[in-house]
Amino acid sequence: MTGDGIPLPELPAPARIGDALDQVDTPCLVLDLDAFEHNLRSMQDWADRWDVALRPHAKAHKCPEVALRQAAAGARGICVQKVSEALPFVAAGIRDIHISNEVVGAAKLDLLAALARQARISVCVDHVDNVADLSRAASRHGARIDVLVELDVGQGRCGVSSPTAALELARRIESLPGLRFAGLQAYHGSLQHRRGHAERAAACRETAARAKECARILAEHDYACPIVTGSGTGTAEFDAPGGVYTELQAGTYAFMDGDYGDNEWAGELRLRNSLFLLSTVMSTPSADRIVLDAGLKSTTIECGLPRLYRQPGLSYVAANDEHGVVRVAAGTATPALGSKLLLVPSHCDPTMNLHDTLVALRGGVVEGIWPIAARGLSR
Amino acid sequence: MTGDGIPLPELPAPARIGDALDQVDTPCLVLDLDAFEHNLRSMQDWADRWDVALRPHAKAHKCPEVALRQAAAGARGICVQKVSEALPFVAAGIRDIHISNEVVGAAKLDLLAALARQARISVCVDHVDNVADLSRAASRHGARIDVLVELDVGQGRCGVSSPTAALELARRIESLPGLRFAGLQAYHGSLQHRRGHAERAAACRETAARAKECARILAEHDYACPIVTGSGTGTAEFDAPGGVYTELQAGTYAFMDGDYGDNEWAGELRLRNSLFLLSTVMSTPSADRIVLDAGLKSTTIECGLPRLYRQPGLSYVAANDEHGVVRVAAGTATPALGSKLLLVPSHCDPTMNLHDTLVALRGGVVEGIWPIAARGLSR
Repeated sequence: MTGDGIPLPELPAPARIGDALDQVDTPCLVLDLDAFEHNLRSMQDWADRWDVALRPHAKAHKCPEVALRQAAAGARGICVQKVSEALPFVAAGIRDIHISNEVVGAAKLDLLAALARQARISVCVDHVDNVADLSRAASRHGARIDVLVELDVGQGRCGVSSPTAALELARRIESLPGLRFAGLQAYHGSLQHRRGHAERAAACRETAARAKECARILAEHDYACPIVTGSGTGTAEFDAPGGVYTELQAGTYAFMDGDYGDNEWAGELRLRNSLFLLSTVMSTPSADRIVLDAGLKSTTIECGLPRLYRQPGLSYVAANDEHGVVRVAAGTATPALGSKLLLVPSHCDPTMNLHDTLVALRGGVVEGIWPIAARGLSR
Repeated sequence: MTGDGIPLPELPAPARIGDALDQVDTPCLVLDLDAFEHNLRSMQDWADRWDVALRPHAKAHKCPEVALRQAAAGARGICVQKVSEALPFVAAGIRDIHISNEVVGAAKLDLLAALARQARISVCVDHVDNVADLSRAASRHGARIDVLVELDVGQGRCGVSSPTAALELARRIESLPGLRFAGLQAYHGSLQHRRGHAERAAACRETAARAKECARILAEHDYACPIVTGSGTGTAEFDAPGGVYTELQAGTYAFMDGDYGDNEWAGELRLRNSLFLLSTVMSTPSADRIVLDAGLKSTTIECGLPRLYRQPGLSYVAANDEHGVVRVAAGTATPALGSKLLLVPSHCDPTMNLHDTLVALRGGVVEGIWPIAARGLSR
């Protein structure tokens, strides 16, 4: 039982180029390239139409192959949320990265400043001490860092809450070596999922007005804001035409997910589901219940359970760590043991963060196997 | 901006041996070795006292270093939940692995049979077609696989629901080459978290009675069950003395977590929190609110939000993808920007699955940096 010199088997890749969808091993994230490319074009066209930059948020996908396609479609660099997350994107050739977050701690600031020798790096601040630490790191590395003041426009997370505080930070940034004041970040995460179209529009107007007023006060004091960054998949249709934001940080638009799908999409932007979790029926205990091999370790549920894609009569009703329990409605044929079903994840960002590989298909045939290289890079 | 020949910085390890807790980069899972070793001893002593085997579930930790310590403490091999998950444990020298789940699909069965040439591998079945597929894979590899029939003892997930169906599977297993009927799996996951001590005890008696009756009927037909496996951290105190289970599949006992901590622990088994998520205060927007750098991508919340460890007056109130919002009660000092706080994850299994590294400390000093080698191995 000790192997007797037989080499340990290796885990094969979940798919090979040219495989049919049904040959992909599960659980596995799969991407419908036609829908994905439609989404990239749609959001880029929307941004172009209103003359704002699209800076896709790579926290949603963590996949350099996705970022390169977004750049090829016309995006201005990317956003990341953590400094470590930037590494695989810089390695892949992305040279304009905004860290849409505060970065605190010596090790992280050191990495940030080192990266700023390789690429244009911008970052958010909301505390004067952090500005000083950032400047010291920039000086150590001989780097130049673009710094945006984060303004809390109603989310109640990070950011300063007044133009006065923003002005104090802008002054501080400009007074210290290695730093350049680059503008404002005004992101409102919870607005993205406000369901009603009209309600979301009204909330966006309010948020943009706060950002506009802050930028006006800064400009009055000779701190013009070349960048006002924010927005997301759920609010881009309102923020792009609004004239306040200079760039959009949308992320999920490339994939869509269950949570964004529940928004009312009454405008011109029509995005499609491109990201799915392929799973296998691993148990068929009764006519009204089957069990899938995809649970909490393959898709997160903080925004609701995943949904079966185009399978009327089948409902994913419980996620255990490694199992998904599916109820089969009366009159619906029970899927056979070993058959494969597509799920729509409810929340793509943390779901992508569970997987090492994204299998890209066109017309049901595998065309690419893309590493999710920034998975787990949360520092 | 293209790097000018400067090499791309590398992400440093989150800690070095000898570092103090405060020097560990965040977010990072940390292990208190004293509490961890207490837990390993406690559960092993409990199993030894009742003469049942402890077969710790590696799905809870996915970390070979943990498994080796469990084995050294007296465990009989390990459980895993997925065939791919077994690989790093076999590579680390674990030679007795029970896959406590059905394995369906040609690629997975091929891997299972190949592993069965390296180690004693057992697996569960609940479908006759799966038994036939398993036998073919065993024959292809010249392997011998121990097969347990999974009995649904009330969980309503996988498994057969009657002794008659179990008997049919046992017959089928014994009739096919490469397979050996090894007994029953009778696991009831949702019982583990039934809060009241007496209520949990009563439910365990009922579950064990079902397993016992099934084993009796199988034995009557000359299919004795050398193994009856099941139980978990929440029910081991009842299942070990019960005389039905021959082995315990407890996993969380090594770490404890918020969800198990909410059980009523009125018996002799007293486990301690050994697993924590270290996080940094990355924003201090107001006296009553701070923001941590650990959100949904560092700790899962399907069993509730993480809790601050020994920080009265601080409550983790919202998890975003990369942020944790903490409310500071009136009269509590607001933690400083950059200070580090320990969180107790609410559910250790999927939280371990988010991280690549577990930093082990004794008395607040880093003693080991352990790869979570089975992270993401969900196939």
